[in-house]
Amino acid sequence: MSELSSPLFTPLHADQSTSARTGILHLPHGKVSTPVFMPVGTCGTVKAITVDDLREIGFEIILSNTYHLYLRPGTEVLGEAGGLRRFMNWDRNILTDSGGFQVFSLSGLRKITSEGAWFQSHIDGSRHFLSPEKAVEIQTIIDSDIQMQLDVCSPWGTARRQAEKDLAVTIEWMRRAKKTWEEKRAQGYEGNLFSIVQGNFFPDLRKQSVEACVDCDTAGIAIGGLSVGEPAEAFAETLVFTAALMPREKPRYVMGIGTPDYILMAIEQGIDMFDCVLPTREGRNGRVYTRDGPFALKKSENRLDFSPIDKECTCKVCRQYSRAYLRHLFKTQEILCSMLASYHNLFFLNELTVNARRAIEQNRFAEFKKEFLSRYMEGRK
Amino acid sequence: MSELSSPLFTPLHADQSTSARTGILHLPHGKVSTPVFMPVGTCGTVKAITVDDLREIGFEIILSNTYHLYLRPGTEVLGEAGGLRRFMNWDRNILTDSGGFQVFSLSGLRKITSEGAWFQSHIDGSRHFLSPEKAVEIQTIIDSDIQMQLDVCSPWGTARRQAEKDLAVTIEWMRRAKKTWEEKRAQGYEGNLFSIVQGNFFPDLRKQSVEACVDCDTAGIAIGGLSVGEPAEAFAETLVFTAALMPREKPRYVMGIGTPDYILMAIEQGIDMFDCVLPTREGRNGRVYTRDGPFALKKSENRLDFSPIDKECTCKVCRQYSRAYLRHLFKTQEILCSMLASYHNLFFLNELTVNARRAIEQNRFAEFKKEFLSRYMEGRK
Repeated sequence: MSELSSPLFTPLHADQSTSARTGILHLPHGKVSTPVFMPVGTCGTVKAITVDDLREIGFEIILSNTYHLYLRPGTEVLGEAGGLRRFMNWDRNILTDSGGFQVFSLSGLRKITSEGAWFQSHIDGSRHFLSPEKAVEIQTIIDSDIQMQLDVCSPWGTARRQAEKDLAVTIEWMRRAKKTWEEKRAQGYEGNLFSIVQGNFFPDLRKQSVEACVDCDTAGIAIGGLSVGEPAEAFAETLVFTAALMPREKPRYVMGIGTPDYILMAIEQGIDMFDCVLPTREGRNGRVYTRDGPFALKKSENRLDFSPIDKECTCKVCRQYSRAYLRHLFKTQEILCSMLASYHNLFFLNELTVNARRAIEQNRFAEFKKEFLSRYMEGRK
Repeated sequence: MSELSSPLFTPLHADQSTSARTGILHLPHGKVSTPVFMPVGTCGTVKAITVDDLREIGFEIILSNTYHLYLRPGTEVLGEAGGLRRFMNWDRNILTDSGGFQVFSLSGLRKITSEGAWFQSHIDGSRHFLSPEKAVEIQTIIDSDIQMQLDVCSPWGTARRQAEKDLAVTIEWMRRAKKTWEEKRAQGYEGNLFSIVQGNFFPDLRKQSVEACVDCDTAGIAIGGLSVGEPAEAFAETLVFTAALMPREKPRYVMGIGTPDYILMAIEQGIDMFDCVLPTREGRNGRVYTRDGPFALKKSENRLDFSPIDKECTCKVCRQYSRAYLRHLFKTQEILCSMLASYHNLFFLNELTVNARRAIEQNRFAEFKKEFLSRYMEGRK
């Protein structure tokens, strides 16, 4: 069990005027430079993007969803394939969530007991049971490099009493997940387990949750229960408060954020990892990112605009295609539009984190953030 | 006007036991080896395929549709872009049909006069007028390397009297197209004009039509009016009969065929060019080609099949992905399925023509066809 004690995370450089930092995650399938944005491949594919393109952009880790993979293709197929990486032909790292978030957001009738969660498939209504032990087992079959504990994610507006109960279950599930994960490691599984901070928007519950995670000593800690319907101020307040409590030596992950302003805010608070479906979802919806803010391809002002999405972008989409052509592809509902817009948006967010890392190394993250956001937020259309 | 007399087509080798032949088309944007399968990019994109991938597969010419491009993005955008090639970032050749087939198959209310065709857009019901002159003008704005005359395409079952009328209009339109095309050439346009043989399924009308095309002396001649609802025997009979009448020195093109059996039948009759939406449409529908016949990805027998689509195929899809993974992508309706299946099917058809060319050069086309089809047709599922 010597690997258990090997360092997963090496902090490299701390920015002098903010909590931002660079680092390296040492994972079974290669190093990952942090801060890192992880594209989401819900069903074992980052939508409309090939793994060749993911490598070309430079991604070292992607996220996939246990809930979706458990329903389709299912653990038998994933097991026979030798894990998700081999199944989808991705040779770098994979992080999987535990399925908890989807059980709460996607599925029909569900019932939480301390044992686990009963839920109905959003596809065919079939009933399934997920426990912290089972979530670890599934993620071990997936062969995730980083797996997440099963947690109870409560929405904005949850009453304190309920939030307390949800947190208590989350903490119990974390301990049970750790135990099962330790068994899997003893059997040769090489992936890591992260715990998740919950506690809704109650500072003392968040603090209690962080302390439990620290006590459980998982390889990394994630902030869950954000982007659950709250106003931007509540998001920011809880992020700042919670991030400050988290131990320095472990990687910190905020689940489900993907807009440049939220990403930069998280990096400023010392967050190392984040993921979101937004860049690919917005790409499919014809919304693309530029240094001067995002814009909608369909707008008539693009009809005769033969310049690229972003004149300063060096991605292959911006080097090859015009706004006018992309608008045409969007209007004719061509698949190529989803392919090109998703690629560009992912390239854009990856480049944002690469530039953020450079700014941190140069102790000028605050200026970088200010400069980037002043152009980006003013240019939004 | 010296270019008018430059040879568009060089026949290279005639197979000794069939009418199959190899050749080279000399087009404004590079040479094209024949027999050639042209993938179809209806709206200025081969669906779910990038131009990088088209080049990688080895395509030297693609087809696009005047009807669709005229409606969207329209001639103003295409003109401002400097033609379709620059608009879509394709640096090789483009052939465009005239719009005639779509006016007859897609549009609502339509009215044919000797002047031209009134039709309704299938998108918004708006009324438009297409004449042989206008079809040449649009295709000149598109900057097609090969443009097709406007023709009247009559369906299987058309009465002789109507077929005669349709042919008379087609011949008149051919002459008017030629006149307008000559004016465009005098103004610097470099593309070629092909005429189209019609005459429905009446041999004497087909003969009359070929003679008119020869008389009009366009750079190439196409066989139209096939795949319009007729049984396979009528298709084959008319193809064989018509192809035999066509002049040896000009490229011969059969419009709208794309299954391996039809392609090989056409090559055997001395046809040099063909196009079809099938490989990409079937790809999007999860049907993929193999040397042992096509099959449906969704079938349960693929669930745990970790072999490639076709074990003998060297395309990047077969080198990287399994049937099990592709089935999963199809079942989850992932865009990547359309991308990968379309790529493989196009690669497969391109390789079929490459192998056919080699067989012709070795005077063994008949054996090649027999060997290929015996495996392909028997393996169909």
